[in-house]
Amino acid sequence: MITVRTAAVITTLIAIAAPGHAVQVTDTSARSSPSRIARAWTLEDIVTVPQVADLILSRDEKSALYISRRADISKDAAISTLHLVDLGSKSDTVLLKAAWIDRLRSIPGSSDWSVLTDVGHGIQLYRIDRRGVMKPIACNNEIVPTGNADGVVGDLLARQPLRSGILSYDWSPDGKLLWYSVLRAEKLRPAVLRDDAVALAAARPRALSGVEVDFHVRFQDGRDVSVLTRPTSDRIARYLNGNPRWNGSAFTFFAEEVRPDGASQFIAFRWDADRQLPVRQDGPPQDPHSIQSLGPHGGRLDTAGFAGERALEETMPDGKVYSYGKVAFLVGDARSAGSWRSADGSLALIGTRAIDHPAYGLQLVDARRSKALVVSGSVTKCDFSETLDIGVCVREAITRSPELVLVTPRRKRAVHRLISLSPDHDRIAPLRAEAQTWRNRLGYSATGFVVYPRNYVEGVRYPAIVVTHGSDADERFAHEEFQWNYPVQVFAEKGYVVILMNDPSPSQSAKLMAAYDEWGGAEGRVKPEEVQRLVWLNGVYSFEDAVGDMVSRGLADPVRVGIAGYSRGSQMVNVTMTQSGAFRAASSGDGGFLEPSVYPESTRTYTAIFGGSPYSLDNLKRYQRLSPSLRAGSASGPILQQMAAPLSGAIELFKALRKSSIPAQITLYPGETPTAYETHVFHIPSNRLAAMQENLAWFDFWLRGTETSDPAYADQYARWRKMGEPNRNRHTRLPQ
Amino acid sequence: MITVRTAAVITTLIAIAAPGHAVQVTDTSARSSPSRIARAWTLEDIVTVPQVADLILSRDEKSALYISRRADISKDAAISTLHLVDLGSKSDTVLLKAAWIDRLRSIPGSSDWSVLTDVGHGIQLYRIDRRGVMKPIACNNEIVPTGNADGVVGDLLARQPLRSGILSYDWSPDGKLLWYSVLRAEKLRPAVLRDDAVALAAARPRALSGVEVDFHVRFQDGRDVSVLTRPTSDRIARYLNGNPRWNGSAFTFFAEEVRPDGASQFIAFRWDADRQLPVRQDGPPQDPHSIQSLGPHGGRLDTAGFAGERALEETMPDGKVYSYGKVAFLVGDARSAGSWRSADGSLALIGTRAIDHPAYGLQLVDARRSKALVVSGSVTKCDFSETLDIGVCVREAITRSPELVLVTPRRKRAVHRLISLSPDHDRIAPLRAEAQTWRNRLGYSATGFVVYPRNYVEGVRYPAIVVTHGSDADERFAHEEFQWNYPVQVFAEKGYVVILMNDPSPSQSAKLMAAYDEWGGAEGRVKPEEVQRLVWLNGVYSFEDAVGDMVSRGLADPVRVGIAGYSRGSQMVNVTMTQSGAFRAASSGDGGFLEPSVYPESTRTYTAIFGGSPYSLDNLKRYQRLSPSLRAGSASGPILQQMAAPLSGAIELFKALRKSSIPAQITLYPGETPTAYETHVFHIPSNRLAAMQENLAWFDFWLRGTETSDPAYADQYARWRKMGEPNRNRHTRLPQ
Repeated sequence: MITVRTAAVITTLIAIAAPGHAVQVTDTSARSSPSRIARAWTLEDIVTVPQVADLILSRDEKSALYISRRADISKDAAISTLHLVDLGSKSDTVLLKAAWIDRLRSIPGSSDWSVLTDVGHGIQLYRIDRRGVMKPIACNNEIVPTGNADGVVGDLLARQPLRSGILSYDWSPDGKLLWYSVLRAEKLRPAVLRDDAVALAAARPRALSGVEVDFHVRFQDGRDVSVLTRPTSDRIARYLNGNPRWNGSAFTFFAEEVRPDGASQFIAFRWDADRQLPVRQDGPPQDPHSIQSLGPHGGRLDTAGFAGERALEETMPDGKVYSYGKVAFLVGDARSAGSWRSADGSLALIGTRAIDHPAYGLQLVDARRSKALVVSGSVTKCDFSETLDIGVCVREAITRSPELVLVTPRRKRAVHRLISLSPDHDRIAPLRAEAQTWRNRLGYSATGFVVYPRNYVEGVRYPAIVVTHGSDADERFAHEEFQWNYPVQVFAEKGYVVILMNDPSPSQSAKLMAAYDEWGGAEGRVKPEEVQRLVWLNGVYSFEDAVGDMVSRGLADPVRVGIAGYSRGSQMVNVTMTQSGAFRAASSGDGGFLEPSVYPESTRTYTAIFGGSPYSLDNLKRYQRLSPSLRAGSASGPILQQMAAPLSGAIELFKALRKSSIPAQITLYPGETPTAYETHVFHIPSNRLAAMQENLAWFDFWLRGTETSDPAYADQYARWRKMGEPNRNRHTRLPQ
Repeated sequence: MITVRTAAVITTLIAIAAPGHAVQVTDTSARSSPSRIARAWTLEDIVTVPQVADLILSRDEKSALYISRRADISKDAAISTLHLVDLGSKSDTVLLKAAWIDRLRSIPGSSDWSVLTDVGHGIQLYRIDRRGVMKPIACNNEIVPTGNADGVVGDLLARQPLRSGILSYDWSPDGKLLWYSVLRAEKLRPAVLRDDAVALAAARPRALSGVEVDFHVRFQDGRDVSVLTRPTSDRIARYLNGNPRWNGSAFTFFAEEVRPDGASQFIAFRWDADRQLPVRQDGPPQDPHSIQSLGPHGGRLDTAGFAGERALEETMPDGKVYSYGKVAFLVGDARSAGSWRSADGSLALIGTRAIDHPAYGLQLVDARRSKALVVSGSVTKCDFSETLDIGVCVREAITRSPELVLVTPRRKRAVHRLISLSPDHDRIAPLRAEAQTWRNRLGYSATGFVVYPRNYVEGVRYPAIVVTHGSDADERFAHEEFQWNYPVQVFAEKGYVVILMNDPSPSQSAKLMAAYDEWGGAEGRVKPEEVQRLVWLNGVYSFEDAVGDMVSRGLADPVRVGIAGYSRGSQMVNVTMTQSGAFRAASSGDGGFLEPSVYPESTRTYTAIFGGSPYSLDNLKRYQRLSPSLRAGSASGPILQQMAAPLSGAIELFKALRKSSIPAQITLYPGETPTAYETHVFHIPSNRLAAMQENLAWFDFWLRGTETSDPAYADQYARWRKMGEPNRNRHTRLPQ
């Protein structure tokens, strides 16, 4: 038996002057004391923005507990901390600090909590009390390493290498059952592979073993029974613990069945308490992913309709619909706060994502009407009491660092600030950011934010950088999933106008939605040319129009505009650079989609976009219309590609750019070991710092013609100078 | 210090009846005693054919020593044995048995020998005497694992995983210097990669470290000096120990310098004995690969001219040429026996490869004329005394297992059989094989052999299989580099006519040679269409014509003809199956060349063949003319692909065949561990057995409609039956 006692450390929030470039406070928000010294953003600030991984209200409603994850630069790794906040005294106590903490729950019938954490024995399930004393609840010594490396089990969700003992767990609400899962790695043996397995062997890291998920039930008397094994293809088992839905100690849970042709369906199991085993349910398949938002009438809350016609509706099991009128938000977004219904059924709370000014809110719904609860910034994590009388939430905004707030939905003044979740970031003088929507020549709108250069002077034209990543330019604080290795805040400190832009949202039009659906499903309902136009060229027009707007408003210098984005953003950057003349430099992150070599791994999506394989003459003409590598000669400026893995499409683009004498660099950032890769969203702090530094230098060099004097970068500049001439406006003096 | 004593085992050649299907002797060769029971070929016989890796004549001319390598089926691995043969008593003593023995030399000024071997301490250099007593000469404890696996250093030549201590060595002829090399693995550290290094990271197994080669000189007084380090790109250092050329204890050696653009040149170093260091030589680059065949006049012996105009010439350093008249062989072939010149300069011996009937011979050259020394079968390894009065050779033929022969070049009867090198294989009744040359419709000739079915009955038409692999259908015994996993001998036992065929040799025509040169060098001198026609379609015509000949002679049944080949052979198989209608089933081994997805790794060769990237409309039309996957719908029969690695081109072809409803299977055979691959020429005996079994079953099923009754293969036949109908002539009765 393992007992771990962690030193209970009281975090005292002392306002000391932090190192860095100190500037006068320009923040006029209520939080900011006028006497405090504010400072400018550094790259280290961006790397160390914390994320709240989990948040609960204690059962006695006197405390909140949360898991915070952030980079520890000195350890060059992420660390997790488990905090206990006294709602009365507002003291914040660190109960546990570890490489990984996850899945915080109240233990039913107890004042203690349970968490998954690795304190040296792999990730196991522990009980922890308010003094920080830990005792193991469930341990599995058959540790399975997971991550993005050779010889370990892949993990789609976690961003760092982990050692998995207990995978996940849920308590029955009455506390009589613990339902948990463990990974069981298939034993690796050399074996003859045949047909599709051979193609798979070529596409994935070698020695990546398959894995099965074993479900266990632990009874109150201590009996522990392995009740079901699910295959590696069942993502509901692998990542969602079967997503159990409880009714006392009765429950159903879900599973995914993948057919040989790759299509999958979801099935349900009922826990048979008498026979103590799961029974597969008949009936139509259900969607275990959807957030079940129940309304005051007991129906399902959702929005219906497109654009200005969107309404909030509650649909009863018999099909009857209650409408709550037109709304300007979407529900069910995984980034929103969640959904709750009071025990008496009278009240529902649903997390929302606003459309015109992308932010995450809470909507209060009673039997007659709905209203927004929180109006400024975003609410991104919450937990509420059963009555919905009281709750705790994380509130943040694009220029406001995260804070813990008390929420009393039934009271007039519903939101009360408790504590800062990142005092370090409170000391940074907020930048000026404005939400904006641009309507392009096709009539589609794209939302986003304009971040002004520090000490912006009206009438001066600044160099500008568009940053894009699908739909998450929103009211969250320096979120790494949006800004990746593009140091938006430091760009602004260094005198750039930064335009954070979303794709035109498919939710605004049935036609646009159909094009996105075609991309995902290739049903043949929308022609490839139309998919190309609506899903990619459409965004290019929005970027061009936003830049045109900035230029016509006198903010941006049209000959010093760059663009940056990773993943979906890398598609848009690569297409934009080879279709539009508006951008003079680009940084494209860890993507390679749309390049012809990727066809074998993407036959379904490529059929929607290009009609099929590039090796037919008709299809090849469609690739030549869109694939960036086939249009490399038209690139309007230098392209840097930063990679977490050596993706073939990115290498294809790099080679094509070089062949066309377009300045180009591709940089692969390493994993922890020579056999590991970085993850798609970087998890190694030194890699993030280096990649942000590289982006800064890249845009400074190509857009402004400036170089840092640090001799460590001399080789880099020598390489770049050989590639081509930086922007001819290199000598334009900028206000600093 | 390590001393190893191996039990000296006298191998007594007892003629016992071997297990297997015993048949009456049909061999009438002089070697075969009429009273001995001969038997039929088994797959195990094919797997256990030995290869002589090295052979030397002892300095006292009384013994021969050789290294034999063969599969040990019970250990499922290759084993090496070092043998001492007394030339007088003809006794064969095993001095050493190990997983690996290599590079056998006489130690100058001693009656002992030196070998590289791994007896548990990695591959080190040992002295061994005639009793088998071993002492280490040079040891390097920094062992570097090599092979075809993740995390080890790649090895282009060795077929099995090895642990390298001493890489290679040479003695100075006067014994004063030992010149040896060791591998030094680059320390593996995670590092940022940029540009071309990223493309490389995508193309190779992960964690494959780079390697440097350290050269050492060991002096007689025991001093050991590290004198030079060569980079991983220098293949002359990596695989040829710098190929030193000695003059007493003075010597020069070679190195390869690879330029950033990938082109390489060879440079020479001179050993400066005074300063005890190597000095780089100026002057034009030399070719360290060429076998230096010196003639009686002291000039370089080589052949000149094409086809019937080829002559043997000796070219003096001043350009003067002595001609020895027209010859029907090539010299300098790496598979031939080598070349020697007597100490008095009067006589030269050169290994030859005959053209019309591919066999390896020895040509004796004096100042006036040249003549063939050995006339039957092939001579594939030799060593001679300095006077050339006496030598030992390995003699073998397509139907004759290897034997050791004594060679006395100056005597009238020059060749005397000593011992069999594989008594097991002597007990097999030889099959009937006939050399043949086919001239195709383009006027080019292709050589090869027809192997008759066991118990051939004239007038009966047999199913036929063409086996091809570039140029090595020749007079060697069941050589795995030619026949790979295609069990030629067991095909014949089971009633197939087997046609072993070479490509039309480029040596027959300047035009053909130019097309091959274009393939290798892409100089733009031959059009892609012409390269396609001469290097690939040309071979297809030869195969068709050979089959047509077999049919018109009444040997082959035209509707039951298959084709098999690996590597270069796989190109020809895949092209043939998608261009010709003559073949009803095929097996294609470990290839994927010519498929469009391989372009990024083969830009130079693909430019010669297709004009460049497949993503230009003009080039794509050229790919559609030749790439097998783009012609999958035209495939004339089922294609099995057996792989040592999951090559993208092979997977591309597999998918295309399946999409066109052509029966197809791709099978990946495993390495020793989950992170290792099989090698291109398989080295794991169980894989060879399984792959041969699979080929037999594949051709039996698709050409003859027969299945083995072994229930272990029920699944396999069920899969195949689902793919399509076997040959409609399945019920034709065959003579057995």
